[in-house]
Amino acid sequence: MEKLTVIKIGGNVIDNSEKLLEFLEAFADLKGNKILVHGGGKMATKVGAEMNIEAKMVDGRRITDIETLRIVTMVYAGLISKNLVAQLQMSGCNALGLSGADGNLITAKKRPIQKIKSKNDDTITEVDFGFVGDLDENSVSTGNLAKLIESGFIPVFSAITHDGESQLLNTNADTVASALAVAMAKHYETTLVYCFEKKGVLVNVEDETSVIREINPTKYEDLKAKGIVADGMLPKLHNAFDAINKGVAAVYIGKADDLNDLGAGLEFGTKLVK
Amino acid sequence: MEKLTVIKIGGNVIDNSEKLLEFLEAFADLKGNKILVHGGGKMATKVGAEMNIEAKMVDGRRITDIETLRIVTMVYAGLISKNLVAQLQMSGCNALGLSGADGNLITAKKRPIQKIKSKNDDTITEVDFGFVGDLDENSVSTGNLAKLIESGFIPVFSAITHDGESQLLNTNADTVASALAVAMAKHYETTLVYCFEKKGVLVNVEDETSVIREINPTKYEDLKAKGIVADGMLPKLHNAFDAINKGVAAVYIGKADDLNDLGAGLEFGTKLVK
Repeated sequence: MEKLTVIKIGGNVIDNSEKLLEFLEAFADLKGNKILVHGGGKMATKVGAEMNIEAKMVDGRRITDIETLRIVTMVYAGLISKNLVAQLQMSGCNALGLSGADGNLITAKKRPIQKIKSKNDDTITEVDFGFVGDLDENSVSTGNLAKLIESGFIPVFSAITHDGESQLLNTNADTVASALAVAMAKHYETTLVYCFEKKGVLVNVEDETSVIREINPTKYEDLKAKGIVADGMLPKLHNAFDAINKGVAAVYIGKADDLNDLGAGLEFGTKLVK
Repeated sequence: MEKLTVIKIGGNVIDNSEKLLEFLEAFADLKGNKILVHGGGKMATKVGAEMNIEAKMVDGRRITDIETLRIVTMVYAGLISKNLVAQLQMSGCNALGLSGADGNLITAKKRPIQKIKSKNDDTITEVDFGFVGDLDENSVSTGNLAKLIESGFIPVFSAITHDGESQLLNTNADTVASALAVAMAKHYETTLVYCFEKKGVLVNVEDETSVIREINPTKYEDLKAKGIVADGMLPKLHNAFDAINKGVAAVYIGKADDLNDLGAGLEFGTKLVK
């Protein structure tokens, strides 16, 4: 079975042009089949501000109204996607900038109105997240995606999907990366790499040298019990183990700056395994 | 030799959602290999105005400064491209929204500073058109494009290209359509279709029933001599015959509303032939 690496980068890479260029060179150098998934960083907020369109929040949650959808489609699928592709092409990487609508590659369902308990008290609020797309196990058109990969293209995904009825939808980029890795695990031995601001899962969050190199489910339970894995790391690791349970061979969590190490077969971030 | 139809639509279709939907359904129904090339219409101007960025003009000519490039990349390659693709997917057309950077499909050269005679007097001005890309006979990566078509994808091109050195460039959509049709003529029997606001080349510009059904180079010279072809039609026909001289089998100039007629083998617009 051929190998496929799915790498997700977020705002901390996208928003820093020097760091981004370094990362893209490392990504271009990475051998084998690969897919890049990118978030949007602060650029959508910036463009929204320039257009006098404020981010809509309900009870601390970001809402994708029609104006926000227009902005994220322009910024993620246009501005960021095409600039990433142009930079990768310069580095000899045959990138293809894609949304989920392109080639019907990722179909999502518009999130239904949700009943959510308020953060402040016990009242239940009905929240309409707007044009947000949720994915399921049938979301990825693996055949079409495999055709692109087999033709030598390197897919670069923004997290804009569609519902198949002409509606574009804003989707979480971590979820897109995970859905792609899980779906393609039928065709490839898939590795999923989440790049974030730290060098990996740290024993001491203040100490970048305290990276835990490997975590299996037993160790994960132990780290949770000891409170070493907490807060923002909890959903990250939960989702990572979920992907592994659904067929992904390994999930790495590390820093975009260190991607060359992964390519060279050196230690990179934290490796999550079965 | 298999057939390939390259169809270009402009603002008069893009800006009218009802007309656009009808056109896209006709495009989806069109049999055989096909490529769609779209302009941007008024949407880029509208978004620019919302961002308080004015169109830059020098001596009546539009300049693509860095701010304008940012806007057209967002609007053409993001907003318009992805909405067209989502609508085509709904109609069962496996569209793939592409810029020239994607798959290195269209490489352009940044237009050098040009010495241009003023429209008002004989003074020569040096005009820097900014981030505008010009195409030549090597611009289209025919191998990569053929791979996409052979895999069953329907390319939908915005007129954003790149220079191969990571710079995106704004390019004339008519020129993109023509360059694609000419380059692909090596692999396919290519037909190029320009959709514009009239039903074809008219004997009487006020009378939509006066369409000239076929024009060959001899008739073209005759129509020019009689002043029937003048003004804005001159460059259109000049470019069309240029494409035919470079290997395109036929060029049609007609109305997007009538595309079904072309698909049904009925008379459509004006057909330009060798």
